Amino acid sequence: MQLLKDRIRKDGVIKEGNVLKVDSFLNHQMDIELLNEIGREFRRRFTGKNITKIVTIEASGIGIACITAQYFGVPVVFAKKAQSINIDGEVYSSKIESFTHKKVYDVIVSKRFLNKDDHVLIIDDFLANGCALLGLLEIAESAGATVEGIGIVIEKGFQNGGEKIRSRGILLESLAIVDAMDAKQGTVTFRGE
Amino acid sequence: MQLLKDRIRKDGVIKEGNVLKVDSFLNHQMDIELLNEIGREFRRRFTGKNITKIVTIEASGIGIACITAQYFGVPVVFAKKAQSINIDGEVYSSKIESFTHKKVYDVIVSKRFLNKDDHVLIIDDFLANGCALLGLLEIAESAGATVEGIGIVIEKGFQNGGEKIRSRGILLESLAIVDAMDAKQGTVTFRGE
Repeated sequence: MQLLKDRIRKDGVIKEGNVLKVDSFLNHQMDIELLNEIGREFRRRFTGKNITKIVTIEASGIGIACITAQYFGVPVVFAKKAQSINIDGEVYSSKIESFTHKKVYDVIVSKRFLNKDDHVLIIDDFLANGCALLGLLEIAESAGATVEGIGIVIEKGFQNGGEKIRSRGILLESLAIVDAMDAKQGTVTFRGE
Repeated sequence: MQLLKDRIRKDGVIKEGNVLKVDSFLNHQMDIELLNEIGREFRRRFTGKNITKIVTIEASGIGIACITAQYFGVPVVFAKKAQSINIDGEVYSSKIESFTHKKVYDVIVSKRFLNKDDHVLIIDDFLANGCALLGLLEIAESAGATVEGIGIVIEKGFQNGGEKIRSRGILLESLAIVDAMDAKQGTVTFRGE
């Protein structure tokens, strides 16, 4: 998605340790016009898929998922991190390791909101090692739901999350795949360039 | 907002301890059509206000804020809970006590995304004791931003958060104010009824 790649080059900040900060438009401050273009692009890439629900994980996936859901006409369910007293006992859960926050946490989805009749599109902002996605896939599998595909805004192509997912035969569409970053030069190389 | 009150009566679940669960349509599974009606209503209630940014707090405020932002044509900034290594040092912060999760945490907003030229509409799903809102107000004040108003989906009118906010002279619009709940009968009394 050229608009997204241009925006990453313009406003993304590259830091040592392969950190790509896009918090000025994607995951802290959110450019809602860009999110709408992203939603339209996901609709285009998953044309013909019968989606009944968009599933994401808190927090930074929620905005993208909600805007995208408008193009599919379906509700959003977001997986929650850790148990809240406002969640009933009956949940699907999975353990996820976050490298950003350096900890393991439980993610949960109420059994009331995901079942075997659901055809799910999973949406998230980033894909790196794939831990969060594997957790969401485990939850979808527990529910007996069909995963029709996964839509990612930015994939770090030099980490193995994409390979893990694609090797399972799951349709994974990433709108921008970063194959290399150079913090000193401040440059990004996208796949296919 | 009658559509919202009807939905709370239809799909809300009342539990002992004044717990109102609306996770089937607002803050776990999200009905995006309802969120759009909520966004339109906020636009109507803040007519004439010059808003430059919508500010909310993760996680459950994000979806409502993003959909609402489409009616104002502005970006969303969501305050993050706790420090992440992906956030730069320069942040505004405030401590918030969560009664739901029974702990105190820091919420932060990067100084790059809020400043004295901003006219802010704060959006959140619930208002009870007002701790989260007071934290966001403190952050907006630190930034020198003007708070044009606060839009809440459901206010628990029997708790004192609304009084705390309104007594400061801030324009607070809640789309449904619950004045009483009866867990045994499963009934809700809204303000003005």
